[in-house]
Amino acid sequence: FVSMSTGVRASMCVIAAVSATIDAAAASVGPVRPRWQHDISSALHRASRDPTAKYLQLATLSADSAFPAVRTVVFRGWLWDTCQLTFITDARSEKHGQILRNANAEACWYFTKTRDQFRIRGQMLMIDETEEHPKLMRARLTAWKNMSPGAREQFFWPAPGYPVLQESEQPDQAARDSQPGEEAATDGEAPSVEPPPSTFILLVLRPAAIDHLRLSRPQQRWQYLPAAPELSTSSESSVAKAAEPVGKTGDVAVAGKDGLPETTTSTCSPSLALEPLGEWAAIAINP
Amino acid sequence: FVSMSTGVRASMCVIAAVSATIDAAAASVGPVRPRWQHDISSALHRASRDPTAKYLQLATLSADSAFPAVRTVVFRGWLWDTCQLTFITDARSEKHGQILRNANAEACWYFTKTRDQFRIRGQMLMIDETEEHPKLMRARLTAWKNMSPGAREQFFWPAPGYPVLQESEQPDQAARDSQPGEEAATDGEAPSVEPPPSTFILLVLRPAAIDHLRLSRPQQRWQYLPAAPELSTSSESSVAKAAEPVGKTGDVAVAGKDGLPETTTSTCSPSLALEPLGEWAAIAINP
Repeated sequence: FVSMSTGVRASMCVIAAVSATIDAAAASVGPVRPRWQHDISSALHRASRDPTAKYLQLATLSADSAFPAVRTVVFRGWLWDTCQLTFITDARSEKHGQILRNANAEACWYFTKTRDQFRIRGQMLMIDETEEHPKLMRARLTAWKNMSPGAREQFFWPAPGYPVLQESEQPDQAARDSQPGEEAATDGEAPSVEPPPSTFILLVLRPAAIDHLRLSRPQQRWQYLPAAPELSTSSESSVAKAAEPVGKTGDVAVAGKDGLPETTTSTCSPSLALEPLGEWAAIAINP
Repeated sequence: FVSMSTGVRASMCVIAAVSATIDAAAASVGPVRPRWQHDISSALHRASRDPTAKYLQLATLSADSAFPAVRTVVFRGWLWDTCQLTFITDARSEKHGQILRNANAEACWYFTKTRDQFRIRGQMLMIDETEEHPKLMRARLTAWKNMSPGAREQFFWPAPGYPVLQESEQPDQAARDSQPGEEAATDGEAPSVEPPPSTFILLVLRPAAIDHLRLSRPQQRWQYLPAAPELSTSSESSVAKAAEPVGKTGDVAVAGKDGLPETTTSTCSPSLALEPLGEWAAIAINP
């Protein structure tokens, strides 16, 4: 996010991601979590008494790509043991239509208590009722069950509710410990809940570049990019590379650098969520 | 922001804006303030003990227009007696370069206490050291003086500080009662402060469309658009119209609906800040 030509002294080092053992709450040894994900979890934990700590701002592109669009959303947890973020939306909402046209997005998450800001650039994946992959279907179902009855009700209204911030539920209930894709959650154990309507969409933000600004003393800043092998030899285009998903590119139509014509749709297949994200390279930026 | 085709029942009424007498703190009878501006001021007032209430998220378009970019900024007050919002930035920051290329922006301001969300779409104007209009020059100078010495210092560093959220000052000092363009502030009365360096930029968000979501009971939602005479007969294109500035269009190169080629620069002249914004039309949206 920061141009190297502006005189910023940047030291680049490829880190092997933070070991999963840092997360004491990890039930089992899963894949290693990137440092930035650990830092978000830590900031969330330190603000656990503040339900609004789970609120962040999600920016997309307007339907004609002429304007950015940004609204507050509620973090619904990490997708399984990955570093992909989940949110929910109504299929009749403005942002659903925008993401259908263009999956490129950036989230801004500011934690007032720890004074950490995370900017997460990536692609939005949408898991809807047409999803056929069992693991993705289950993730959508779990997210549905984790909502309060009142919040679920909005998706059955003839007109959409307030799509910007569906949180008539208790916010701290929104992103409680159970993850949207938690394997342990079975239909039998959960209380009886009617199935989600077609309007209920699970959103997944698949990160491609992270900017972490820590404003507490000492002030620090890091950027994280996928640790592609060619990164160390070609730092010039590293940010541009980060804008591309690291999974199967065959599934994805990424917007070209020469603008986004109105007729272009650059969507991502939800199955991209199943692809491993690999390791991350960290760039520490010290003014 | 909401498509009328999704079944939302919308009742449209053109209101003559809220009288300035609503604002009891108004020192003199100025121009009438739009209802949405009054509501923001009210939310700010109710959160006056929370310095982070002045934090909001500003979304712009990435240099290649492929991605939205969003970061937290600090509200620095209204520009004079207008409903234009001010922020500051460093000329070496990422967002400065983005706004130079494309002035289209949207701010998202969520007030946790009152549960009000304001989305403000419009054009960014930048007032820098080359500004020659006395009123605009003075607005930039006042914003500079309102900052703490520590925050001012960052603009003299060889590399930019943390441009995303310059707030090493006390946040409540950032947007205190004195406005950036306050006429009463004179150089003689203020404590001696060295003049702002060329890196110091006053940002002005000139609003073109507002979306106000109130999540407290009863939940309500309003949209505000410039009250153009043809609005009532052509609601179909009202949002598209709102994306265009209402001042002198001759000064402005607005991005066309057919995308933003990489070579296009659609900037706004800072003198647009001097143009009256006129009245606003309110659309109440009830699900």
